[in-house]
Amino acid sequence: MAGTDRTPVTVIGLGLMGQALASAFVAAGHPTTVWNRSADKAAAVVEQGAVLADTPAEAVAASELLVVCLLDNDAVHAVLDPVAGSLAGRVVANLTSGSSDQARENAAWAEEVGFSYLDAAIMTVPAAVGAPESVVFYSGPREAYDRHGDTLRLLGGGTTHLGEDHALSALYDVSLLGVMWGTLNSFLQGAALLSTAEVKAADFLPLALRWIDTVKLFATDYAAQIDRKDGAFPANDATMEVHLGAVQHLLHESEAQGVNAELPRFVHGLMERTVAEGFGQNSYASMSELFRTPRK
Amino acid sequence: MAGTDRTPVTVIGLGLMGQALASAFVAAGHPTTVWNRSADKAAAVVEQGAVLADTPAEAVAASELLVVCLLDNDAVHAVLDPVAGSLAGRVVANLTSGSSDQARENAAWAEEVGFSYLDAAIMTVPAAVGAPESVVFYSGPREAYDRHGDTLRLLGGGTTHLGEDHALSALYDVSLLGVMWGTLNSFLQGAALLSTAEVKAADFLPLALRWIDTVKLFATDYAAQIDRKDGAFPANDATMEVHLGAVQHLLHESEAQGVNAELPRFVHGLMERTVAEGFGQNSYASMSELFRTPRK
Repeated sequence: MAGTDRTPVTVIGLGLMGQALASAFVAAGHPTTVWNRSADKAAAVVEQGAVLADTPAEAVAASELLVVCLLDNDAVHAVLDPVAGSLAGRVVANLTSGSSDQARENAAWAEEVGFSYLDAAIMTVPAAVGAPESVVFYSGPREAYDRHGDTLRLLGGGTTHLGEDHALSALYDVSLLGVMWGTLNSFLQGAALLSTAEVKAADFLPLALRWIDTVKLFATDYAAQIDRKDGAFPANDATMEVHLGAVQHLLHESEAQGVNAELPRFVHGLMERTVAEGFGQNSYASMSELFRTPRK
Repeated sequence: MAGTDRTPVTVIGLGLMGQALASAFVAAGHPTTVWNRSADKAAAVVEQGAVLADTPAEAVAASELLVVCLLDNDAVHAVLDPVAGSLAGRVVANLTSGSSDQARENAAWAEEVGFSYLDAAIMTVPAAVGAPESVVFYSGPREAYDRHGDTLRLLGGGTTHLGEDHALSALYDVSLLGVMWGTLNSFLQGAALLSTAEVKAADFLPLALRWIDTVKLFATDYAAQIDRKDGAFPANDATMEVHLGAVQHLLHESEAQGVNAELPRFVHGLMERTVAEGFGQNSYASMSELFRTPRK
């Protein structure tokens, strides 16, 4: 066991994710203190070498770096508010799921109390904590992140500081999850449609994966167009008119072959409105105007 | 110029795509005959070495392999019906956009008339015809595809015969376009949401692209689950309950930050129904049940 040369770290909250976090710190030789409302959840990590604190106050006192992973933001305050006085000067990395507004509120609270607050989002499952491909996002003071970067990077090779704005972790989190659902839903739509012609999802898969690589190139072109902000969305590939015609085919096929047509109909509606707004001769990136416009 | 040792090919329809097809054949040394309702569209490819036929009948007579790329299925029949008698024994590769039902109808017609019919879908733009990464799908008799495979593969390195069922090209076409729109729409949603925190699309892009590679792994797992057809969708990563909670965050963030919340709301609705159907403890692949169920 190493130990004394590694930064002490405290993990507050020992759900499946919290246990995985504590376990990663212990495995790397960090003196690791843990606390959980139900102490029995600590058994496994204590077995591995973590020290169970009797109280939140004791857990806070044990380390300059506190990693918090609780059920929600209310739970965070229920545990930390009573010990706020002893948080001053410490770094709180909050890996609890929450909104960007909560992140900014917590940051204001940290400012008031006098500790450094990092809001974080874990883009992986407990079993993959610590893997080279696992991504954990942090946002908040760069200095605090850099001070504990070596320790925090133990949780995933894709650990990234997104910026000083505390809102960023939560916004990136849901934005990327959205990309996941969008990609998966349309894959499931295609798999359903092709199943009517006895095509297996496993046969659709390799062509879909290859195609997604092409889509990544489109996204790259469109990102540049969006950032230009001059309202010009040159149709280097296909125009919105062409996309609208093609999505009508998808809608028609879905109806004709007897699968769910709701997603094609929804996407068709979005494109129809973008064309109606005058973007018929523009690229698909012109759809960004619609996505930026508030609408419930 | 090569020429005599290459298979003669006829291209019918010289829109931008038809011109690109003819150009690719000419460039590879194939004796190429072209026809178009407005002969002036032929000027560029004739300049390159194509021969302009005066009539559809002459165009058909010139080659055993006919590549057809017209506006729509009605245009295909307007040109070919009058010369149907001379189609017998030839191979018609129809690259005109159309539905899977039209493909099957055309196949029945080909059977009657006595020619080999390949239905095709071009997954690229005219400028990329012939590129190694360009994909063209064919469906219909494998023997006819194999006979002219070397010629047809000139149109794109990703040229693929999908199967004997003529419906496959059209179904794969719209299914993959659907994956494109699904991925792009959710990227645009994320870009819009992040723009409220002054994040540029170009900064979101690399994280989104990296994440999409992870999503490809999820899709791979889910494809296998869908094909098992035993109704078991084991939640190896996250349960539908967890996804539903997370999409509520995306919906909330989109509303709170003042961007369009329609897509998150739509996706939330799909997940809510899947959970209500009893898939709360299953993986995201359980959403496939909803996509397979007919609904307008």
